[in-house]
Amino acid sequence: MKEYNVAVAGATGVVGREMINVLEESGFPVKKLLPLASERSLGKEVNFKGNKIKVELLGEDSFKDIDIALFSAGASISKKIAPFAVQSGGVVIDNSSAFRMDKEVPLVVPEVNPQDAFKHNGIIANPNCSTIQMVVVLKPIHDMFGIKRVIVSTYQSVSGWGKEAVDQLWSELDEIVKNRQPLLKERVEKVLPHQIAFNLFPHIDIFTDDGYTKEELKMANETNKIMHADLGVSATCVRVPVLISHSEAINIELNKSATPEQIKEVLSNASGVKVMDDVAENIYPMPLYAAGYNPSYVGRIRKDSTIDNGIWLWVVSDNLKKGAALNAVQIAELLIKEKQ
Amino acid sequence: MKEYNVAVAGATGVVGREMINVLEESGFPVKKLLPLASERSLGKEVNFKGNKIKVELLGEDSFKDIDIALFSAGASISKKIAPFAVQSGGVVIDNSSAFRMDKEVPLVVPEVNPQDAFKHNGIIANPNCSTIQMVVVLKPIHDMFGIKRVIVSTYQSVSGWGKEAVDQLWSELDEIVKNRQPLLKERVEKVLPHQIAFNLFPHIDIFTDDGYTKEELKMANETNKIMHADLGVSATCVRVPVLISHSEAINIELNKSATPEQIKEVLSNASGVKVMDDVAENIYPMPLYAAGYNPSYVGRIRKDSTIDNGIWLWVVSDNLKKGAALNAVQIAELLIKEKQ
Repeated sequence: MKEYNVAVAGATGVVGREMINVLEESGFPVKKLLPLASERSLGKEVNFKGNKIKVELLGEDSFKDIDIALFSAGASISKKIAPFAVQSGGVVIDNSSAFRMDKEVPLVVPEVNPQDAFKHNGIIANPNCSTIQMVVVLKPIHDMFGIKRVIVSTYQSVSGWGKEAVDQLWSELDEIVKNRQPLLKERVEKVLPHQIAFNLFPHIDIFTDDGYTKEELKMANETNKIMHADLGVSATCVRVPVLISHSEAINIELNKSATPEQIKEVLSNASGVKVMDDVAENIYPMPLYAAGYNPSYVGRIRKDSTIDNGIWLWVVSDNLKKGAALNAVQIAELLIKEKQ
Repeated sequence: MKEYNVAVAGATGVVGREMINVLEESGFPVKKLLPLASERSLGKEVNFKGNKIKVELLGEDSFKDIDIALFSAGASISKKIAPFAVQSGGVVIDNSSAFRMDKEVPLVVPEVNPQDAFKHNGIIANPNCSTIQMVVVLKPIHDMFGIKRVIVSTYQSVSGWGKEAVDQLWSELDEIVKNRQPLLKERVEKVLPHQIAFNLFPHIDIFTDDGYTKEELKMANETNKIMHADLGVSATCVRVPVLISHSEAINIELNKSATPEQIKEVLSNASGVKVMDDVAENIYPMPLYAAGYNPSYVGRIRKDSTIDNGIWLWVVSDNLKKGAALNAVQIAELLIKEKQ
């Protein structure tokens, strides 16, 4: 079996670390793993297959002999550095928003549009976390019944922001639990725009002129690019005090009538999706229990009778796994399968 | 000024205590306050206007000379005991779900349907918390532009369940912060169906045969009863690790076109509503900062272009104040105003 030299740019972030975990878990044929990060992370090591590997400095010259470069170091670094990885002969799979809506760059979820992965010019974009877990569920429904409109409200964990937001939640809770005061005094080291412990806010990524956040627009634009569709998708994206996994309340207007049982059946046969729906036993997906697992879990499948052909779903998935690292490694797997 | 003897049944619960606070804050003309609770709470005291008042046993004979009885002791106790308070000549304002959909019982939000309060036969029902904060916002919009359909996803705090759920969240966090383990081992004393710290779940009140929770159906049925309307309202209700205040992402289909600016103007003039919407300054309602205040706060007012006349709102309010105690006391104020 052919083996590949794989670089991970942003190797010490929450997604970068998870990429290295998933490379190991999935048995990806790695010849050499090259963890790359900024100066701040020099001296750190990552664990891979029982070995400790030193983090090296991410730069334009980092990619000699690299076959696949997984990027998760932020959009501006991707924009600046990814072209050099391509120039060195590697394929970049980029987890940032830098290239996602670029017409020359495929945006790929392997269960939904695997064929697009092969149309790359050196860069393939990994979609936004909240989009990935939704499209793997929407696609099989759209194929069978046709989707007209999607209204989605999200419940997104702090790890979607990154390690500093995870640290912010823990350190807020330390102080709150100690002092028994839910509302903290202003803190200096916060990275999220407000206190997140005992709180939540409808603000993920920056605001645009039309009053939407970029995160909300991503859910609409990326969904349609991935699905090669023109669905009406409108979102409210909310940060919640959860560590890992995003949850989504999704209201769908179908073109054709479908019973909840039919939707369940379609989703039960869908790749990357796991139906978890038995309310009589209090069974529905929850972020705490989805963390660490691969599927996009779906529950609370029921009819919305306020319109013809209305359906509600509740979708939860680990934002670091399927929402980021797992999807990126699955794209890499697609590429090497073609080569074999 | 005439003064009234006021009983509070369930005086030691989170809502009961808040009712006593609001009676004091609002300057309600209380001659005698009678805090009532079950045997478990005997020996406890409540604070009212600088005095400590002993809690007395709630029973059929508790209501001699009581003019107004505010009930927040659960639906089964309301069903059993409220009729005796009425028999004694008092008016009951009941915060439970016991009588809300009873055709003989008015369901009142003073900003929305004050006239209904006067059609009572001794009992007036206080709506569900998540419904109240939504209808004060929907009503002025409906009057001006007509509402066709409402899709709402909620983010509801643990105090909506009661004091034991608040205690559950605190004690879970104590253990999590101590052990640095997000996922607790199974605990005996939990009252919510699952761990709530670092978690959330689409399960408030019990499930019905059509896959909805009773909480979700309340938001539809109570909204239409209060507004004397027949709007399509469909909800997903979610419990989140927040202490106080419920948040709601509300997607509205209007009959007539309205710009976000027009909606803002209508809501700026609406009673019980406060617009808090300046995303350029990171200003939108949040539960942590709504706690302790009276209004139903509205932000993130924007167009949903996936349909004609679509609008998104983000509504946050203290579920113990406007969602429960404040609304109940406001109903009492309506009644005594009529008598004066």
